[in-house]
Amino acid sequence: MNSLPSHPGPPVTVLGAGLVGSLLALMLAQRGHSVQVYEGRPDPRRAGYTGGRSINLALSERGWLALERAGMAAPVRELAIAMHGRMMHAPDGTLTFQPYGQAGQAIYSVSRGLLNQALTHAAEQAGASFYFGHRCRRVDLEAHTISLQTTNHQTKELAYLGPLFGADGAFSALRQALQRTDRFNYSQQYIDYGYKELTIPPGANGQHQLEKHALHIWPRHNYMLIALPNPDGSFTCTLFFPFEGETSFASLTTPAQVQAFFAAQFADAQALMPDLVEEFFANPTGSLHTVRCGPWVRGQAALIGDAAHAIVPFFGQGMNCGFEDCRILTELLDQQPSDWPAVLAAYQQQRPPHADAIGELALANFLEMRDLVADPRFLLRKKIEAQLHARFPQHWVPLYTMVTFSHLPYAEALRLGQRQEAIMRAVMQDPTLTADNWEQRLDLAALAQQMATAG
Amino acid sequence: MNSLPSHPGPPVTVLGAGLVGSLLALMLAQRGHSVQVYEGRPDPRRAGYTGGRSINLALSERGWLALERAGMAAPVRELAIAMHGRMMHAPDGTLTFQPYGQAGQAIYSVSRGLLNQALTHAAEQAGASFYFGHRCRRVDLEAHTISLQTTNHQTKELAYLGPLFGADGAFSALRQALQRTDRFNYSQQYIDYGYKELTIPPGANGQHQLEKHALHIWPRHNYMLIALPNPDGSFTCTLFFPFEGETSFASLTTPAQVQAFFAAQFADAQALMPDLVEEFFANPTGSLHTVRCGPWVRGQAALIGDAAHAIVPFFGQGMNCGFEDCRILTELLDQQPSDWPAVLAAYQQQRPPHADAIGELALANFLEMRDLVADPRFLLRKKIEAQLHARFPQHWVPLYTMVTFSHLPYAEALRLGQRQEAIMRAVMQDPTLTADNWEQRLDLAALAQQMATAG
Repeated sequence: MNSLPSHPGPPVTVLGAGLVGSLLALMLAQRGHSVQVYEGRPDPRRAGYTGGRSINLALSERGWLALERAGMAAPVRELAIAMHGRMMHAPDGTLTFQPYGQAGQAIYSVSRGLLNQALTHAAEQAGASFYFGHRCRRVDLEAHTISLQTTNHQTKELAYLGPLFGADGAFSALRQALQRTDRFNYSQQYIDYGYKELTIPPGANGQHQLEKHALHIWPRHNYMLIALPNPDGSFTCTLFFPFEGETSFASLTTPAQVQAFFAAQFADAQALMPDLVEEFFANPTGSLHTVRCGPWVRGQAALIGDAAHAIVPFFGQGMNCGFEDCRILTELLDQQPSDWPAVLAAYQQQRPPHADAIGELALANFLEMRDLVADPRFLLRKKIEAQLHARFPQHWVPLYTMVTFSHLPYAEALRLGQRQEAIMRAVMQDPTLTADNWEQRLDLAALAQQMATAG
Repeated sequence: MNSLPSHPGPPVTVLGAGLVGSLLALMLAQRGHSVQVYEGRPDPRRAGYTGGRSINLALSERGWLALERAGMAAPVRELAIAMHGRMMHAPDGTLTFQPYGQAGQAIYSVSRGLLNQALTHAAEQAGASFYFGHRCRRVDLEAHTISLQTTNHQTKELAYLGPLFGADGAFSALRQALQRTDRFNYSQQYIDYGYKELTIPPGANGQHQLEKHALHIWPRHNYMLIALPNPDGSFTCTLFFPFEGETSFASLTTPAQVQAFFAAQFADAQALMPDLVEEFFANPTGSLHTVRCGPWVRGQAALIGDAAHAIVPFFGQGMNCGFEDCRILTELLDQQPSDWPAVLAAYQQQRPPHADAIGELALANFLEMRDLVADPRFLLRKKIEAQLHARFPQHWVPLYTMVTFSHLPYAEALRLGQRQEAIMRAVMQDPTLTADNWEQRLDLAALAQQMATAG
C-alpha cells in the first residue's frame, strides 16, 4: 500500500516502537496520519537488537492477516521458517510428530529483532517519525503531556494533541497513568513458573540439528522444554520450569545438578547443547504474567498490544493478538476516518473481551503443552477430534485451529472450545475406548451435531 | 497494658496514621518497640478530621478483640452506639426489624474521626512518634528509603532500618513500590456502583429521628440507602447507587429529579433530610473497589489493612479485618519477640487467604443487602437459619454471625457459608414452603447434620 496524501486529522503519538507500536505506526502512516513514535531503547539498526526477552516468536494466521493489510506479508515471509507441527521428544528420545492442522497449515518461527526492524523501517518509509532513546516515564492525562527520558538522562515534556497510543508493553507507562484514574480495573497475575532461554547451535555445516520445520517439545508433566528453529541453523530453546519446589530453578544450583537433570530428562537436547551449563547460569530466569485491565480508552489515550493485555506465551498468540488489535483498529478507522472518538469508543467496545479470552486460553494451553501432549489418551483424543474436523469441518474445528488458523474472535473460540471440551470429556470417560476401536464405537455425526446446535 | 521497657529490636516505621496504622503503632509501642509513624494528613487534633471518606463505621467482634488487646476497648465503648439489628424500610414506610444475632449481640456505630484520634493519642502516650503532614510518595525497597513530602512541599529522604509497615490505605505508596517488583500479584476491581453520603440531622431537641439502636436499610433491589446513628443525634446516610443506567447517578442531574426519586423510593428518609438536594450535588460520588495482592511481605516491608486488602463496605468488615491483622501480627510477635523475619514470614503465610475471603464475602453481601433483605423468601430463610442456629448452635452458625460475632478465620467462614448456601438453596426450592408450615415440614436436625459432616 502506498502512502496517501497527508490526512487532515490530528497528529498521532505512539509510545513504544516494539512489534505492535511499529506496525500501528506503519498502518496509520499509510492512511496519511502524522505519526510520532517514542521508544526507550536505542535504534536497533545502530545499536543491535537489545530489547525484548524472547528472541523468536511464532507467527500465525491472525498475525499474517494484519501484516498483509500493511503490505508486509511478503517481506516477512522471507524471514520466517514454517513449522508444520509439534515434534514431541520422549525421555528415551522417541519422537512423535503431530501436525498442527491440515496439509499446508503451519505456524512460522520468526526472529523478533528482524521482524521489528522490518516493521520500523517500513513505518519510517511510510512517513512515521521514530524517536529512539526516548523512554516515556510519565503520562499526564489531565495536561495531555508525556514526560520522556532520553538516553543521556535529559527529561523532555511534550504535549500530545491527538490520539495517544500506549504500545509500550507489559510494563506500560500509559497504563500506569490510567491505573491512577478512578474506576480503572487492573490485574497482574504471575504464574509459579519461570523460563530460561538456551541454545542448540547449528551443526558443523551450518545445518539444523533437529527437524527444521517443527516446533519441538519435551513435555515432562510438571515442566517442559521447547525449541524453535532460526534461519542460521540454530534453535532457540526455552525451559519452562517451576521457580520453587523439589525440581525447580531453586533446586538446580550447581553445574553437576544441571547436567544430571538434563541427562535424565532431555538427553537428546543436552547432547546438542555444548554451552548448556554456561547459558543456564548466565541467562536470566524470566517470569511470566497475565495483565488484564480496562477501560483501555480514556479520552484520547488508548492501550494496545501487551500494554493492554500481556499474556503467557503458551498459545503463541501474544504478538498475533497485538497485530490483530492493529488490524481491527484500522478497520474501524477506515469506517469513520475522521472521527477518532468514535473509533476509540468502538475499539474499547469490541476488543477487550477477546483479549481476556486469549489470556485465559494461553494459561490453559500451558497445561496442555507440558502435560497432556505426553499422554496417550490425549493423543487419541486429538486423533478423534482431527477426524471430526475432517468429516464435519463446518461443525467441528479444533480449538487450536480456531485460535491459530482462523480469524474467529477469540471469545467465540473460547466458548466453542469449552463446548468441545465438555463433549470430548464425556467421550473419553470410557476407559475401553482405544486407538483400535474408536472408529467403530463412536458416532461422530452425533458428536458433530452437538457442536452444530452450539451455534 | 503498660509500656514495657524499651525493646532492643530495630526501630519500626509505619506509613499511615489512619485506624490501622495508629492501632499497630500502639500495639508495637506497648511491646517496647521504637515506632515512627508518617502520615500525609495534618494532625487531626489541630486541623480537625479531614481524611477518610466514610465518617462512621461499624465495629464488630473482631475489631473489639484487637482493641481489647491494646487496652482500648473501654475508652472506645464510650464513643460507640450499639446497633442490635437491621431496620428495613419498605417503600411505603413499613418497618421490619431483623436482629443481627442473639440477645445482647450488636455491632457498634463509631465515628471514624473520634476513633482515630483516640488510637493516635494512645499510641503517642505509649511512646510512638507521629509525623503528620509527611506524605510518603515513594519507597525504594533496594535502598531501604522512603521519600516524604511535607505539607510545605519539602521532600525528605529517610532510611528505614527495621520493619516498614504500609498501613497507608487503599492507594498505598508501599504497595505501589511492591507492584514494580517481580512476581507481585495485584488486582484492583471496581464495582459499577458509587456512593454518596447524606445526612439526617438531629431532631429539634437533639434526639435521633429514627430508632437509634439499629442500622437502617432501604433495600431497593438495584440500589439501597443505609443510615448509621451518630452520638449527636444525627444519622449518616449512604446511598449505594449505579453510576450509569436508567436510574443512576448519571440520570439524576436536577434538584427536581433528585426530589422526585427520593419521594418515590425513600419518602420517610426524605422527610428527615432538609438539605438533601444541596448535599446530593455538593458531596462527591465515591467509587468502590476491591484490592487483592501478594506477597504482602518483601524483605522488611509488609502491607497491612486496606493497603493489603481494600474491600467493599457491605459486610462492615474493612476496619475489623485491619484490626484483626494487627491482633494476629502481634500474637506472632509475642511468640517470637526478637525475630522479625520469622514473624513477617508467618504473617505472610497465615493472613492473606483470610483477606481474600472477606473481600469475596463483602462483594456477595452487597447482593444480600440491596436485594434479598427486601424479599419475603429471604426473610423466611433467615428465620429458618435462626432456628437452626438456636437448636443446633454447634453445627449451624449463620454466615453473618461467623463473620461478625466470632473470630473464626474468614476463609473458614466463607467455606462453611458456601456449604450452608447449598443446603438452604435446596430447602428453599420448594415453593410451597411458607412461614406457616416450615416448622412442621422441615427436619432441622437432618439439615444441621449436613453441616456437622462439613466439619
